[in-house]
Amino acid sequence: MLVRVTAGGHVGWGECEAAPLPSIAAFVCPMSHGVCRPVGASVLGETIDGPEDIRRIAAKVEYDSMDLLQAAHTLSGVEMALWDLLGHARDEPVWRLLGYRASHPKRPYASLLFGDTPQATLQQGIAARSAGYSAVKFGWGPIGRGSTRDDADHFAAAREGLGADSILLVDVGQIWGEDVEAAAARIPALEASHATWLEEPFHTSALDAYGALSRRSAMVKLAGGEGAHNFAMAQHLIDYGGVGFIQIDTGRIGGIGPARRVADYAVAKGVTFVNHSFTSHLALSASLQPFAGLADHRLCEFPFQPKSLSVDLVAAPLQRDGNGEIAAPDAPGLGIRIDPAGMRDYLIDVEIKVGGRTLYATPKPG
Amino acid sequence: MLVRVTAGGHVGWGECEAAPLPSIAAFVCPMSHGVCRPVGASVLGETIDGPEDIRRIAAKVEYDSMDLLQAAHTLSGVEMALWDLLGHARDEPVWRLLGYRASHPKRPYASLLFGDTPQATLQQGIAARSAGYSAVKFGWGPIGRGSTRDDADHFAAAREGLGADSILLVDVGQIWGEDVEAAAARIPALEASHATWLEEPFHTSALDAYGALSRRSAMVKLAGGEGAHNFAMAQHLIDYGGVGFIQIDTGRIGGIGPARRVADYAVAKGVTFVNHSFTSHLALSASLQPFAGLADHRLCEFPFQPKSLSVDLVAAPLQRDGNGEIAAPDAPGLGIRIDPAGMRDYLIDVEIKVGGRTLYATPKPG
Repeated sequence: MLVRVTAGGHVGWGECEAAPLPSIAAFVCPMSHGVCRPVGASVLGETIDGPEDIRRIAAKVEYDSMDLLQAAHTLSGVEMALWDLLGHARDEPVWRLLGYRASHPKRPYASLLFGDTPQATLQQGIAARSAGYSAVKFGWGPIGRGSTRDDADHFAAAREGLGADSILLVDVGQIWGEDVEAAAARIPALEASHATWLEEPFHTSALDAYGALSRRSAMVKLAGGEGAHNFAMAQHLIDYGGVGFIQIDTGRIGGIGPARRVADYAVAKGVTFVNHSFTSHLALSASLQPFAGLADHRLCEFPFQPKSLSVDLVAAPLQRDGNGEIAAPDAPGLGIRIDPAGMRDYLIDVEIKVGGRTLYATPKPG
Repeated sequence: MLVRVTAGGHVGWGECEAAPLPSIAAFVCPMSHGVCRPVGASVLGETIDGPEDIRRIAAKVEYDSMDLLQAAHTLSGVEMALWDLLGHARDEPVWRLLGYRASHPKRPYASLLFGDTPQATLQQGIAARSAGYSAVKFGWGPIGRGSTRDDADHFAAAREGLGADSILLVDVGQIWGEDVEAAAARIPALEASHATWLEEPFHTSALDAYGALSRRSAMVKLAGGEGAHNFAMAQHLIDYGGVGFIQIDTGRIGGIGPARRVADYAVAKGVTFVNHSFTSHLALSASLQPFAGLADHRLCEFPFQPKSLSVDLVAAPLQRDGNGEIAAPDAPGLGIRIDPAGMRDYLIDVEIKVGGRTLYATPKPG
């Protein structure tokens, strides 16, 4: 869901990594309780002169929409758009508005699926290496569905395919629920394959299981956090879950401000911040801003196989540099030009009426 | 938001403690992502023969709507309605379907606001005592806004008004954010006033602060949890936050099933379960079911000053017994008869169209 904000002759764009219809409803709904106010009531008509105004608006949403669950997802795109708008108004990139002096290049990793067999995984690894990727994430597929030995064969095949020098990341999509021993049984093979992280071994909320597993290996760190829809959820994954990599989607956590707060917290706790991003380059740029200035937080997620929608709505996508790396752009706002013509074919008309009054109708893209 | 479910010639009712429009949208929205499916897709057309079907449907929503934030609030009312319907189909009260053998009476507490002055608080306490309440919760008002001494005067006045034998509960509505020392400074006065619990000293997510404060007093327990929208949030308040009372709203946590799971967990951890409920007697009955069979979990929240809407939509409200206590009714389902005529004046027409197709229009109450 794209969000467009206008103020003072400027335009800002943001993207919610969320279900569009409930997110729109959370913006326009009539107040039902004291702390179930619509997100729009905290945003529309507000003054925006600087970053402190964005924080003030976000705090207002957090309080006035406390019992409106969807609010955090709605706010994420709005908050992002406010930073973009402010950047255009000030002619500054968002990362500079966040207090960073430089936007350090990040090493994008390719995301692949494990093959059905170790041989297929090996071929995937070889192909990724040939395509020039020096960091690769293998995910899902058969892992956790067969024996520990089967999984070990896949990890070894992935490493063999990539070669010794590449970064190998493993994502198992919450396959073990809360079962620490099932996950721990795979640790020796992950260590032998020099995997850098094991992503989402458990449900996002299984903090105890994360914590217990994190103490089983000094080499393989845990990664998680993409589902965090507020700062505290990320903080708890760090403090109680013991993750070594905290993965934040700015389109879910409430936007760039809370994501930056997680980045600061990660630095203080010796944890590495990584963006979570798999849609457009607008969302990608927004996801890079919170840790753009952290030179030591090097890895970044990059949407390698975007859907046509994600491609068509951006006029000028981010480009990888000569080293194959990307960086939050040194351009005003999020540095991404949205192409209204490109999104025209994808726009879906939504109309919401309450008590006979139209609360929402999809605006024209132009 | 009321939910009506029909199946096999039976009808069940539930109530979401949630913003209606986003909750409706979460039920009907088109699928946007693999795990952003509408709640309705996991519910409509499913078979419901027993409690295991309700758990299966809830698990399907949890997985298929994983990234749809509002889903938990929407599901809460639907799940409740499914239990009500199943109870009618089986001619059994929900608490019996949950495995309890008896519905033990609970001691309802009156909720009052602290007065502006200690003298006003004293008068409130005297009035509550005269009205026959043996458990009273004082909340909000000036607490935490003045000095520690001012607050101590209010706590002492409340106790003096209630007399020595009543249960005194204190609710401060998250006033101290994450400030453990500010809260801890009030503990001696709470102990001197024999307060049973201190409710919501901090933000729901401030688990560290809860945990630190819980270790400051053996006498005054912490209470919290009304904002929990899944089992894990309640579990974390118990495990990391050290609460002595876990307060669960079945209209937010995903319904009666997860609330029952919290009750079991509370028993295992020596924590007391308390319902959170402030709207209709439909929601009240649903909130009592998860701990109906726990004889030692005695306190319950009871809406003393319901709005006319809450009164009008129920044909026969729960009655306090000769001891002034209430219990989950020994009647089929939730044991609450909904009065469609009573709700007619409050119904608000909602219409949601997507791509020209009407996805939702408010049904007739009859």
